[in-house]
Amino acid sequence: MTSSHDNTLKQKSSDTKSENLLAKRFLGLEKNIWIEFSALAIAHKAVNVGQGFIDYAPPHYFIDLYKETLDDPNILLHQYTRGYGHRRLVDAISNVYSPYFNRKIDPLNEVLITGGAYPSLFNCIHAFVNPGDEVILIEPFFDCYEPMVRSAGGIPRCIALKPKPESTHADCSSSSDWILDKKELESLFNPRTRLILTNTPNNPVGKVFTQEELEHIACLCQKHDVICISDEVYEWIVYDENKKHIRMSTLPNMWERTLTIGSAGKTFSSTGLKLGWTIGPSNLVRGCQIVHQDCVYTCPTISQEVVARCFEYELKRLNSPECYFNYISKELLEKRDKLVQVLKECGMKPVIPDGGYFILADFSEFGDQFQSDADDMKDFKFVRHLTKEKQLATIPVTGFYTADDRHLAENYIRFCFAKKDETLDKAIEILRKLKAN
Amino acid sequence: MTSSHDNTLKQKSSDTKSENLLAKRFLGLEKNIWIEFSALAIAHKAVNVGQGFIDYAPPHYFIDLYKETLDDPNILLHQYTRGYGHRRLVDAISNVYSPYFNRKIDPLNEVLITGGAYPSLFNCIHAFVNPGDEVILIEPFFDCYEPMVRSAGGIPRCIALKPKPESTHADCSSSSDWILDKKELESLFNPRTRLILTNTPNNPVGKVFTQEELEHIACLCQKHDVICISDEVYEWIVYDENKKHIRMSTLPNMWERTLTIGSAGKTFSSTGLKLGWTIGPSNLVRGCQIVHQDCVYTCPTISQEVVARCFEYELKRLNSPECYFNYISKELLEKRDKLVQVLKECGMKPVIPDGGYFILADFSEFGDQFQSDADDMKDFKFVRHLTKEKQLATIPVTGFYTADDRHLAENYIRFCFAKKDETLDKAIEILRKLKAN
Repeated sequence: MTSSHDNTLKQKSSDTKSENLLAKRFLGLEKNIWIEFSALAIAHKAVNVGQGFIDYAPPHYFIDLYKETLDDPNILLHQYTRGYGHRRLVDAISNVYSPYFNRKIDPLNEVLITGGAYPSLFNCIHAFVNPGDEVILIEPFFDCYEPMVRSAGGIPRCIALKPKPESTHADCSSSSDWILDKKELESLFNPRTRLILTNTPNNPVGKVFTQEELEHIACLCQKHDVICISDEVYEWIVYDENKKHIRMSTLPNMWERTLTIGSAGKTFSSTGLKLGWTIGPSNLVRGCQIVHQDCVYTCPTISQEVVARCFEYELKRLNSPECYFNYISKELLEKRDKLVQVLKECGMKPVIPDGGYFILADFSEFGDQFQSDADDMKDFKFVRHLTKEKQLATIPVTGFYTADDRHLAENYIRFCFAKKDETLDKAIEILRKLKAN
Repeated sequence: MTSSHDNTLKQKSSDTKSENLLAKRFLGLEKNIWIEFSALAIAHKAVNVGQGFIDYAPPHYFIDLYKETLDDPNILLHQYTRGYGHRRLVDAISNVYSPYFNRKIDPLNEVLITGGAYPSLFNCIHAFVNPGDEVILIEPFFDCYEPMVRSAGGIPRCIALKPKPESTHADCSSSSDWILDKKELESLFNPRTRLILTNTPNNPVGKVFTQEELEHIACLCQKHDVICISDEVYEWIVYDENKKHIRMSTLPNMWERTLTIGSAGKTFSSTGLKLGWTIGPSNLVRGCQIVHQDCVYTCPTISQEVVARCFEYELKRLNSPECYFNYISKELLEKRDKLVQVLKECGMKPVIPDGGYFILADFSEFGDQFQSDADDMKDFKFVRHLTKEKQLATIPVTGFYTADDRHLAENYIRFCFAKKDETLDKAIEILRKLKAN
């Protein structure tokens, strides 16, 4: 749907000013895998196990609290609220998160409410990156990291998580096999390094970073005076009790240099909310506020009030198994294991995730007729083929790498298993009919 | 509330990299009048006739359609929708607006849904402005225009609307007395001019630009190959049948160089929605899409569905007096006239607006003890005084000018009369007790 427009940013006028309309900092950033593959999935009525959203109901109280909010006699809930975050929501976030951050979070100065984790990332990156500054990205990364760095004039410096070689011959591997080379990571830090972006639990690998791994990153941040943007939107989705989610911000001396990003859409399984937040020290949050007030000024009032009420609901039962934050992983674990089993059976080697709701699958056995070339990577071709010919929508993984490192992932596609049984069963039916080369 | 943070963007570390954390393009853009004066109004429990929102109920169907949407069995309404705009909403916008634009608007390529008119402005400006490009702004302008231009690296070139001298001795004047000097405007256009921002009906003056005035701007845009960003969020709010709202985009040869910005919050008197749109030719909208996908990717699904349903509701009765778009001005006209009368009585000379929901008032007779100095303008001092001492919150008008031209407006404050009778009556009571020097 977008490709027909990529080259139309010219006016018909012969004047030179119209020749290149798009501001230079966006040139080369026109493509977006979500735009292409969401449209493709819809056009081919494909079973969508690609995009990262739950296709069944949000927690039972969600719609009730939404309606309760609409019944509230306070008519001002339909008008602008506080620019940096609706008061009831920042208070709720402070109340819920303070114990997890081992400190009292100041709701007014240490929390910024945004239109989703995506704009939170934008604000963090644009607040602190000057042209020429370097930003360390860990591949594979949520794809928007790279264009956000580039549109700020920053230079991505990348290091890939690499699977341990010993795991490559089994019928599956684990996300914990994907590791960073310590020396390689150290070599990327230098006086021009401004930020590092971390993401745990990781999308798309599903890796939950260990204490030791995070400490190594933290140590380098402190040594080189680098700010860490910690994308923790899958914070509640961890499958192995031995691999708990560790917040970068809680490591020694890291609060003052970490901005932690969360998502209401992921937390309450309602990605359509498009509400997120950034938590961190007031001097760093202040920078994000300035970008926020330049781009959007304030976020929707009703949905902030709804999310506040949802958090208040969960706050009363945070330590019980019924709490949605504890329950969600149990629900998803069954789905993960069901899809893993089928992927193994059909010969696509899954990388079993410790967290998040994605599975990488190695499709080497299927993809001989698809080869990377100058125009397109093998995984993009395979995903288009599956979507168009088999009505199965997944996401190509090279989209989560910079151009230089794409070859590392050309044999992987990403599945999202946070789907209702009906969707998963349809996907499984299609997978079972697929034949390897 | 913000001032205590303006200077805290330094870390404690002695490392030079931490000395100036904020990216350079945001330096000097830290202040925001909405953040300061909204907080001040709340802190002093002031009667808020400053900020531009209606404090009474949205149209009667609004909450019903919201609840109807929440009752929709389609659970996917709680998940991500199309990045450039929810299909039902872009279709509704095409259906409603095509007759007003005298063309069939392509819902997929000529409409972009955003998180409000504010981010629409950001996308338009950031899509097309390179560092060093000039952007023509007409003062007074909605205050965010300037920081958005500056954060893109652009240079604001300003021309002020100036009241005709013959109107200065009466007890009031008209927004139509505020005019542009044609020669002065022409002198601003040059080969570096990238954009001009227009706003009709204008905030804060309330001026509804005439056909002749718009044609002069249009002619200059064509001559100098300049794109026009036309902020038309008050499109439905015009009081004089002889001064109809004219869309820049409908002037000859202007569709192809105009991006028109609209607001669901203003249209349905529910600013808390934070939903807006940009309408224009596909090559220009494409640029805005690229910025949008870098910042936010997609907007909330439920509220887009609600606004679509609201538009569909109005579409059936567009030409009837009951249509909210026709009705809203009638409701507001009474409020305008009520406030105008009191401002005249108390000696603050109002500029009677032809559109929008603001009144500028000249407080020269009141302000002798407040004088502009290097730190602060007279109107800022007077507004703080009224808010703190009289519990009456208004907005200082020099905030709508660049630094060089602020002296032109130091005697004006802005009132919003889109308030319920109870609010207006309280404001009137306070105004009646004010005494001129």
